[in-house]
Amino acid sequence: MSFADEEGTFLATLGSTAFCGELTGEAVQAARDAAGRALPEALAAAGYAGRPPARLDRDRHVGFLELHIEQGPRLEAAGVRIGVVTGIAGMRRRVVAFTGRADHAGTTPMGRRRDAGAALVRHAAAVGDVIAAHGGPDTVWNIGRIALEPGASNVVPGRAELLLEHRDLDDAVMDGVNAALEALEAQTAAATGIGVQGTTVAARRGAATDARLAGLLEAAAAEHGASSVRMPSGAGHDARVLGRHVPAAMLFVPSIGGRSHDVAEDTAEDDLVLGVQVLATAVGALLDQA
Amino acid sequence: MSFADEEGTFLATLGSTAFCGELTGEAVQAARDAAGRALPEALAAAGYAGRPPARLDRDRHVGFLELHIEQGPRLEAAGVRIGVVTGIAGMRRRVVAFTGRADHAGTTPMGRRRDAGAALVRHAAAVGDVIAAHGGPDTVWNIGRIALEPGASNVVPGRAELLLEHRDLDDAVMDGVNAALEALEAQTAAATGIGVQGTTVAARRGAATDARLAGLLEAAAAEHGASSVRMPSGAGHDARVLGRHVPAAMLFVPSIGGRSHDVAEDTAEDDLVLGVQVLATAVGALLDQA
Repeated sequence: MSFADEEGTFLATLGSTAFCGELTGEAVQAARDAAGRALPEALAAAGYAGRPPARLDRDRHVGFLELHIEQGPRLEAAGVRIGVVTGIAGMRRRVVAFTGRADHAGTTPMGRRRDAGAALVRHAAAVGDVIAAHGGPDTVWNIGRIALEPGASNVVPGRAELLLEHRDLDDAVMDGVNAALEALEAQTAAATGIGVQGTTVAARRGAATDARLAGLLEAAAAEHGASSVRMPSGAGHDARVLGRHVPAAMLFVPSIGGRSHDVAEDTAEDDLVLGVQVLATAVGALLDQA
Repeated sequence: MSFADEEGTFLATLGSTAFCGELTGEAVQAARDAAGRALPEALAAAGYAGRPPARLDRDRHVGFLELHIEQGPRLEAAGVRIGVVTGIAGMRRRVVAFTGRADHAGTTPMGRRRDAGAALVRHAAAVGDVIAAHGGPDTVWNIGRIALEPGASNVVPGRAELLLEHRDLDDAVMDGVNAALEALEAQTAAATGIGVQGTTVAARRGAATDARLAGLLEAAAAEHGASSVRMPSGAGHDARVLGRHVPAAMLFVPSIGGRSHDVAEDTAEDDLVLGVQVLATAVGALLDQA
């Protein structure tokens, strides 16, 4: 099966969430795409108005195996063609707001400023070291957005905001990183005299894949003469949703140059074919055991 | 006289630039306010269509003395009621663009990223030390705008940009700061592997005030029993424009709390009255000498 809208044009993992019975009518009514189009309207335009969704049936469905491109460079760098996913990383997303005072940037002496932007820069420059000290070996993080207000070169920023996220398979590691970030926020506030307020705006738990199904994927790769490596998935996938209801596992095939979410995203045809062969062999083995 | 639009709703120092004959017809035709309204249209709506502008007449006008609020905290902090302006600071405005590569922030290992935002933060954190080392005692600077692209928490920034300005009375000091900022840009590029491109997008020369007229203001303050202090102006003023054509000087009265460009901007009524008295006395002395 192939699930609709895993990327979240309307709602992230829309199709698998609906399939698993996790989607509420309120969420469907409220969902809009970036252009403001309502999900019920889009469903009607596609001919789905009033049609009941397909549903997971525990009497028929014994597990979920998902084939996906890696979206990263590890397999290519290691010269390995199959990745067996050990788990899907969780995520914490955090907005940090800095509150100072807007002043004329020509007339206000440097020592008299309460520069929210300067506090943000100082804080952002320290985030990497804090996460390196408190995260795990697979922890990744990103500062994706920064805004200074009012945003004019001749006004000292009175307010500033950054948006960051960090990911790991292990919820305890992410909790430790969040605690370290909170401590850093207090340090920045104390050192600069600027108000610093951090808020977790989104959180997703890490999810291990099913060990038995992962073993079936490894055995299937070996049966096709392909090397494989165990690795976490940094991105979210439908298997995370299915894994809450049935045993689930995933395999990756290499992304050329590790590129993804870009027009350069590609995978060699041989790797796609091998991925489907390994998947089919593992599905056969799973059905044999069922 | 009071000049229109010193702040630049349409054009900075519009009135004084027109009065001094520096305003071109092309600039008038091209000028728009933030709402997109054309300057000729606004002039017509105010009843000025076809009326010749008032013009500086060197046979009648012997000098220009400007009274202004300080827009900063120095006079209040020093307990002095009159500031005699030694010069109007120049300004250099610089855009620095960082070019890396956008990647998925969950799947791309930290060591494989070309993060334009991280390079920007590293650079911005170093700007203060560089300007402190190469600027003068009155140099002020500000980073007023930062943007990361595409601006999503789950995408490593592929492009980033900051807007900064620095000001000083002395053009040689500003040139030195610009050279040091260029060197820092090269260092950031070398250390991060990210493309760094700095461009000066605006520049205004520093302008000393007329020493004889400044002396008349100091003497007038003393005549009114008021203490005065010599100080530069960090902000631009009409006196900068007039000073290119006739001897010009300025005096400041204190801004309460140093606040300006904010609804909190205010000056004590006694200080406003004293400022007008000192101005009138200096004008009388100037005319006596003419």
